[in-house]
Amino acid sequence: MSEYSAQKLYDDLVKHRHIIPVGVQGIFGRGPVFENVLRAFDDLVSRVAADDGAEKMMFPPTLDRKVFEKSEFLDSFPQLAGAVFSFYGNEGQHAQLRERVHAGERWDDLQKMTDVVLTPAACYPAYPSFTGIVPPKGRMVDMQNWVFRHEPSPEPTRMQAFRVREFIRVGTGDVVVEWRDMWLKRGLDILTGLGMPAKSDVANAPFFGRGGRMLGADQREQKLKFEVLIPVISEENPTAVCSFNYHHEHFGQIFDIKTEDGSIAQTACLGFGMERVVMALFKTHGMDPGSWPKTVRDKLWP
Amino acid sequence: MSEYSAQKLYDDLVKHRHIIPVGVQGIFGRGPVFENVLRAFDDLVSRVAADDGAEKMMFPPTLDRKVFEKSEFLDSFPQLAGAVFSFYGNEGQHAQLRERVHAGERWDDLQKMTDVVLTPAACYPAYPSFTGIVPPKGRMVDMQNWVFRHEPSPEPTRMQAFRVREFIRVGTGDVVVEWRDMWLKRGLDILTGLGMPAKSDVANAPFFGRGGRMLGADQREQKLKFEVLIPVISEENPTAVCSFNYHHEHFGQIFDIKTEDGSIAQTACLGFGMERVVMALFKTHGMDPGSWPKTVRDKLWP
Repeated sequence: MSEYSAQKLYDDLVKHRHIIPVGVQGIFGRGPVFENVLRAFDDLVSRVAADDGAEKMMFPPTLDRKVFEKSEFLDSFPQLAGAVFSFYGNEGQHAQLRERVHAGERWDDLQKMTDVVLTPAACYPAYPSFTGIVPPKGRMVDMQNWVFRHEPSPEPTRMQAFRVREFIRVGTGDVVVEWRDMWLKRGLDILTGLGMPAKSDVANAPFFGRGGRMLGADQREQKLKFEVLIPVISEENPTAVCSFNYHHEHFGQIFDIKTEDGSIAQTACLGFGMERVVMALFKTHGMDPGSWPKTVRDKLWP
Repeated sequence: MSEYSAQKLYDDLVKHRHIIPVGVQGIFGRGPVFENVLRAFDDLVSRVAADDGAEKMMFPPTLDRKVFEKSEFLDSFPQLAGAVFSFYGNEGQHAQLRERVHAGERWDDLQKMTDVVLTPAACYPAYPSFTGIVPPKGRMVDMQNWVFRHEPSPEPTRMQAFRVREFIRVGTGDVVVEWRDMWLKRGLDILTGLGMPAKSDVANAPFFGRGGRMLGADQREQKLKFEVLIPVISEENPTAVCSFNYHHEHFGQIFDIKTEDGSIAQTACLGFGMERVVMALFKTHGMDPGSWPKTVRDKLWP
């Protein structure tokens, strides 16, 4: 019998008021201790990355639909995206809407698509702001954004809404690869330094459909995606708490980002799934941060 | 000629990289100095409210659709709400979706309503967790959540996505009214203490339609809504940066919240529009916090 269980972790988190159920899977409130740990981890990452000189940005949970359409996210992950619909009707239609909602009937046909979607990946809102020629040493951005994924699940680690601390690198291939290698080591060091059995591995994204499975195999082969994994709800299938994606010229092409010599800039991003890191800490060290090992506490609350 | 102008403030904020345009109105990134001021104000509010003993909670930008439907938000503000739609199709429909998006054609009919909506007001996710009998002294909650309002506008102060630092009080009428009076003074004190010409006033919400205007007049008469206002983009129409709403038994009834004697609990909430407070500070004291008056800086960064 494995000591890992999605249900047990969920129940423990609820019992200690680290998470507060709201009704729908993958959407829950966060309690004070959960938020305290999350902020401490966020600050730890800031201290580690303090000398990198990254530009700080922060984007809302909603994104320009046009940027989203350009990004080609729907080609790969149509099932995960969320589009925002609103009511554009008159008073008569409003009466209809009210009646339907109060009667518990469907009201989806009284909603129309707006110009915004939910942010599907923490880095997407930033790319349009890179359009043009990047400086010789490239650009580096540091953000913490809310991300939406339409994948309701009873696993506490698989959320519809979560925060990602995300770094983006833009520049020549050399610049991007060097940065990747630095962060892969650093990401692993941060997590093992907190006493967690973290391991990195080549990975592939959950591309949609049969063609998607081929895309995934391709991605693995080209080593475009790395993850840092920690057992949280399963020992056999550890949870990705840190994810690195190398986009090559994908976003440079789409958003017309160039290097000084006129070629298309490359991009890569690295993100920590903040809620997953916090859950991994609770799973590894127990539900009360007061009883965590001193070395871990000292790193989080120096 | 007034020195107040929505366009000038927007341009100044962009020029100083305090906000980063993304493409659609009311959605923009926040730069490092903007976020730094926002966090400092958030911490100031935490220090002022430290001894209240409020329970800390935090909710994602998306909410259970059932909670939203119960809340009756659509009765009053159908035009401001945002429902999340996703793709539920097969591979054939995915091929269609891809073609349409790449051809710049509509794809709204390939989306279906999900079980989540965007959080329409910072306090809504918390009410279901109050169901039952509240303790004799009631409950008090402290949160910071992202809120969505479908009202694209060129005014920087009118956003589609923004953060609210929100306090909720639940209990008997006496408990709620005493708390309201305390916070109305305190909210005003915090903002005038930062050197801003803040004033409080009775207000009404932007209820939809003709019936809505009557509801608004009613709300004013019953003094259910107070706001703290600061001139930010107009002297004649100052911007609400802090808003108090007294719901009487509305949410108690809907979510079955009772006081010890078995009667329906009353609720009220008070929220600071965080981005609006930050913009009011920039407007009042200038675009560079380094040159703000020492008294203001000392309060924000003690």
